[in-house]
Order: sequence, then C-alpha cells, then structure tokens
Amino acid sequence: MALLSAMKLQGRPPPISSNLNPNSKPAGSDSVSLNASEPGSERKPRKFSSQLNRWNRARTLRSGAKLDSTITNGSNNTTGPMRPIESSSRTDVSTLDSDVSSSSNGVSEADMTAAKSIYIVSDGTGWTAEHAVNAALGQFDYCLVDRGCPVNTHLFSGIEDGEKLMEIIKQAAREGAMVIYTLADPSMAEATMRACKLWKIPSLDILGPITESISSHLGTNPSGLSRGITNSSLNEDYFKRIEAIEFTIKHDDGALPENLEKADIVLVGVSRTGKTPLSTYLAQKGYKVSNVPIVNGVDLPKTLFEIDPRKVFGLMINPLVLQGIREARAKSLGLGSSFKTKYSELGSVKEELELAKKIFAENPTWPVIEVTESAIEETAAVVLRLYDERQSNRAMPRISKSY
Amino acid sequence: MALLSAMKLQGRPPPISSNLNPNSKPAGSDSVSLNASEPGSERKPRKFSSQLNRWNRARTLRSGAKLDSTITNGSNNTTGPMRPIESSSRTDVSTLDSDVSSSSNGVSEADMTAAKSIYIVSDGTGWTAEHAVNAALGQFDYCLVDRGCPVNTHLFSGIEDGEKLMEIIKQAAREGAMVIYTLADPSMAEATMRACKLWKIPSLDILGPITESISSHLGTNPSGLSRGITNSSLNEDYFKRIEAIEFTIKHDDGALPENLEKADIVLVGVSRTGKTPLSTYLAQKGYKVSNVPIVNGVDLPKTLFEIDPRKVFGLMINPLVLQGIREARAKSLGLGSSFKTKYSELGSVKEELELAKKIFAENPTWPVIEVTESAIEETAAVVLRLYDERQSNRAMPRISKSY
Repeated sequence: MALLSAMKLQGRPPPISSNLNPNSKPAGSDSVSLNASEPGSERKPRKFSSQLNRWNRARTLRSGAKLDSTITNGSNNTTGPMRPIESSSRTDVSTLDSDVSSSSNGVSEADMTAAKSIYIVSDGTGWTAEHAVNAALGQFDYCLVDRGCPVNTHLFSGIEDGEKLMEIIKQAAREGAMVIYTLADPSMAEATMRACKLWKIPSLDILGPITESISSHLGTNPSGLSRGITNSSLNEDYFKRIEAIEFTIKHDDGALPENLEKADIVLVGVSRTGKTPLSTYLAQKGYKVSNVPIVNGVDLPKTLFEIDPRKVFGLMINPLVLQGIREARAKSLGLGSSFKTKYSELGSVKEELELAKKIFAENPTWPVIEVTESAIEETAAVVLRLYDERQSNRAMPRISKSY
Repeated sequence: MALLSAMKLQGRPPPISSNLNPNSKPAGSDSVSLNASEPGSERKPRKFSSQLNRWNRARTLRSGAKLDSTITNGSNNTTGPMRPIESSSRTDVSTLDSDVSSSSNGVSEADMTAAKSIYIVSDGTGWTAEHAVNAALGQFDYCLVDRGCPVNTHLFSGIEDGEKLMEIIKQAAREGAMVIYTLADPSMAEATMRACKLWKIPSLDILGPITESISSHLGTNPSGLSRGITNSSLNEDYFKRIEAIEFTIKHDDGALPENLEKADIVLVGVSRTGKTPLSTYLAQKGYKVSNVPIVNGVDLPKTLFEIDPRKVFGLMINPLVLQGIREARAKSLGLGSSFKTKYSELGSVKEELELAKKIFAENPTWPVIEVTESAIEETAAVVLRLYDERQSNRAMPRISKSY
C-alpha cells in the first residue's frame, strides 16, 4: 500500500523522449520522471497511428491472416501517442522519426524490422513468464519466421520494489511495449494493473489466475510471497536433480558403458541426432541419462543389450536434414574436407542411418523417435510419455509429480 | 467442430467407478463411457462432502490460513459427487472408502496424504503449463512442505485428438481433479471449457489469454496450431544452444582451462556450490559456461585471471549448509570416513570457504553470488541479470531476445 502512494500515478502516459532507442545509451540516463509533463512537442500520434496502421494491415494481409478488429481498435494504436520502438538485441534499428520518413512510400525494409516489444516483469526468476510468452509466440510462427511481425522480449526479473517496477512500466509506455507480469505480492500486482490501465498499456497478469484457481481447488490461500522453496534448496528433489545432471554429464557420448544399467534412460543414435542436448534437458528434470552413439565400424557396448530394454530409446532423423546439420557442424569445427566428406557426404550419412535402422530393427522393443523437425523439448516430451507408458503400463501416459 | 459432435456431452459427470486408484490398473481398462449412466449405487456424495469438508477446514485452520469461502462453496465440494482421489506416484494411497472409514474419528494420517490432483493437458509438450503450475504452487509452499495441502500433478502432453481429451477430462471428474490446459486449436480449447463447465470441474486455459493479448498487440491472428518451429529445428538459436550445451559439458569442473576465454560465463566456487547444474541450466539458454573449482592446495588456472573479468562470477555458500550437502554427497558416493572427514568436516569446509573469500576479495570485479537458499533457476536469473548489466551497462538489467 505504501507502494501505491509512492507511485504518483497520473492520467497521462510518459512522453516520448527524443532518444527512442534504448540501446543507444543507458536506460537510466534518459529516464523520465512520471511527474514531468513535457507535452506536445515530440508527439506525433495521429501521423504514426494511421501510417503504421496501414503497414500493419498490409503486413497482416500479406501473411495470409484475417484482419482482426483489434488491430485498429487496440488501445495503443489510436489512443496512445506511442508506437513500438525497436530495441532488438540483434538488429540495430532506426528511430521512430527515420522509420516514418523512410517508409512514406509504402511498406519498406524498416517496416519489416519494426519489432514490437513485450516486457516481461517478475518478482521471481521470470522463467515461467518467459516460457509462457515463448509458447504463445509459437502461434505466430507463420509471421515471425520471415520477421513479418518481429517481436523483442525483455525480461526484467527480481523486481521486488515499487519504484523499479514503475520505472519499467514507464519505459514500456514510452516504447509502446505490452507488459506481461507475474508478481506474487498482491499490492504490486494491483499497482501494475492500475498503472498499465491508466497509461493504456496492454497488460496481462500471468500467474494470478492460476494461483487463484489453485487456491480455490486446495481450499487455502496463497502466501503472496514470490517463489518459496519448492524445488529449491536441499530437499529430496534438489539432490535427485543434481545427481541426475552429474550422472548425465559423465555418461555423455558413450562414456562409461559399464554404468548403463544405472541410467533411467538410455538414448541411442548416430552423431548429430541431438543426443547430448536431449540428455541434459532430461537430466534437468531429474532423470539420469546415458547416450550411446552409433558409429559405422564401432561396436555398440555389450551392456546396451543386457540392460532393461524399457529404458532404451532410438533416435532417427531424415538423411538430408542430417547431412545439412553435419555440414554446418564440420564448418563450425573448421574440419578439413577429407573428414567433412566422410562425415557429411550424403552416401555415408545414409549408410550410417541404414546401420541405425538395422540395429533398431534387431531390437524391436526400443521405441524409435523421429527427431527431424522437433525441438529438444518436444522430443523430451515424447521420451517421457513413452517412459511412463513403459514403466506403468498405463493406457494414457502421463508425467506425475507429488508436491 | 467434428470434435464437438463426437464428444457426446451430457449434463452429468461420469460416475465414480468402484476402482478409484488410477495406479492400480491401466486407465484404459476402467474407462467409463460418457453415455453409460450407472447412477447411484456407488455414489456417496453427501457423506464424502461433509466429512472431507470438515478435514479441509481443519487443515486450513491448522496451516494458519484464513478460511476461504470458496472451500465450502466451491463447485466440486458440494454439488459434485466426486472428491479428489489420491494418485500420488510416491505414496500408494487408499481408496476413498477406506479413507473415510479410517478417518471417522477426526483428522488422520490418511487425511494428510489425501492429495488434490491437478491435471495438466496440452496439445504440445506441456512444459509451459507444468512450469506455470509449479510457479503458482510456490505460493502454497507454507502448506506443501509439511504435506498439509498435498498436491499431485499429472501432465498429459501431445493430446491432439478429441476423444483422448474427453477421456482425460472424464478421469479428472472422477478424481475431483482440476484441469489446467493449453490447447492451440480453438475448437479443442472450447470443448474442454464446455466439458469442464458441464461437469463442474474447476478449469483454466493457461495460454489462451496470453495468446489473445499478444495477438492484439501484434495486430495479427494466432495460427491455432500447437507449437511451430520457434526455437525448434535448425534455426540459428537451435545451433547456438546445441553448441553451448556441448561446450559446457566439455568444460565442466575445471576441464580445458586453456579455453576459458571462449566461454560466455565462467563460474568459480568450492565443491558443492552447484556449479555443474547451474552451468547446464545456463547452457540450455544458449550460454557457453566453464566452471572452475576452488580446491585447497590446488592453484587456479592462470587463464582465469587473463580473461575478461566481466564474465566471471563467484559462488558463495553458508559453511553449515555446505557441510550438510557434502555429508550427504560423501554418503551417496559411499566414501570412506577419512575422505569424508577432509571433505565434509566443518573446520576444513570453513577453511576452504575462507580461501574462496580471499580469492574473491583479490578479484573485486567478480560479483559474488550467495547460493545458500537458492534454486538453480534463481541463481541463474541473478547471473544473467548481472551478465546483462555488465555487458550493456544498463541501469535496469534485462534479458532480451528477438523473435
């Protein structure tokens, strides 16, 4: 509550400063006081809105999507003076002024890189919100891939103090960013909601609704404290996870085959099927993983055929894709062309995959997972679903946890 | 839409079958058709509700929380015939009948393990929803730690077919579970919402609101497809991440100190400060990490003092806590008492930490992070915030990404 009084909210969004690119100098040096009014001179709301709206609509039509009424009616398009300002960490982009002048003849390069900003604000690590935003952005892949609707996210974590919080929200207003937040302290969450409403910043409380519905389900109130010790210090899960990670690192790439029986999960596949990243991802979730490479001319360890086959998973990949990955790999390692030929030449890639297929056929109890177009997380989900199914014999595999 | 007609919704929740423990046999074998009415005989709604309500209230009072009106008015407490059935993967719990009979004299052991279920249903990996539920549960730590309000989560991932979806929701109704879902296909999401409403299952769409507000912010429509190729196959991020993971594994525990300059982040600390799990967690996010142990009597590599000090981070921990962790470690490794003494005896633990302090004092540009009560994710957030601050000189550190 002290926070609310310290915030000095007023019904007008912070003015756009003449220096709009937050990368060009430290954010602190161009921070604008909420009380400073500085109205008018640098605002060109109408021009921006109509111009940018047209691009927006053109871009949307190009991308094949239906035009949504929220585009033109959205609060920060017509009512606010701000438009998203580029703050990409990859591309150094122009200021709002040059953006407009260079694009007056229609859709230009500048338009394509006019990324919209999403501010993620958390009093904890912020990983949950980042995860959620990332997943939601998956639904816009069709225009993200060609940077037709580019997005920059900015994660502000560990924000536990009201002043910092308001500074970030002000900055979001200046950039025309939306604010996605997760704040356990109810007064901080409410302050954020009110400030965003007042300044017409699109905003969303991510964890509030989940916490509320879990609270009602459990019949007990949330603590209002950000992140407790769940999965944290020194409990059983913590030690299990550490042990899994250390085991997995020690048993990468066929190391210590005599320990295969100690693993929870054993991955088998040719080079560059993603065994190592998949192993460490699963290890983060508490599973001890060994991975065993299939290499032409090298025998697989005998122990692989002696252990419980329910924990063995084969990885398979499309030969052309694998060839591409291996070529990239050979290049990044600076390997000579003789090695490159053997490693990434399509004939030998196919030969090695044939060998893998033969091995998998001889061990029909090992499920074979196609990884060609899958992210590590996706393959991990498939592995763990099958793992549960094979361990529990359940018809509807699930991954269960007790808290 | 075909899905909706295939669902055969009816205004009555599926009856409780006599076999309530989903672990006792495969879920498929006791699945109940939505059309089968089987009413009456096995339902004991009133008895369960009043009895369990009393425990619930007692438990809530014991835990020091205010009694929330949703406890007694909650839809699945008084109106539905179902109560949460235990399905813990850790404890093999009794059926509802024996639970009631053993507890008639008041609050019993059975009560303490009567975990509430949360069903997480996703057409993708489900990791986002799992992450969000886990974070929200952090606010109930005060009663989760002593299992005063035990919770079991069950993640059903890759659910892309309407029939499977309805089977899971039916099972949730039978268990008195709540359903938290993320389904990109709007007709699947709507079907879930309707079925849960009809059967009075508390439910929540996690990604719907985020996707909607991002859609309005970007001025373009979501694809309605679960997970695209963002962060997935063969883009720059993918290769960067793989490379980071492989680098990090190769440079664990002081290995290859001649490569320290190639790392993005270098962690320095005594044994059991969590360098390895922190390194692999950061690697999943695309950072190449080396970690260097501080060991009494072993010189640190010279290269550590030659590289850019802005990427070096010291880890510090409370000596008593470290001693406890090392004792547990020595036990798990089955080490003899002589090693155990040197490794986990308080005197030598303190001595080694003093050495670390001295090294950190001699290198005042290295930030020192206290890890004693932090989860890996929390320490990672601190490291990356400082990393951004040191690289960019920004007053308000953030972690930025372009999509």
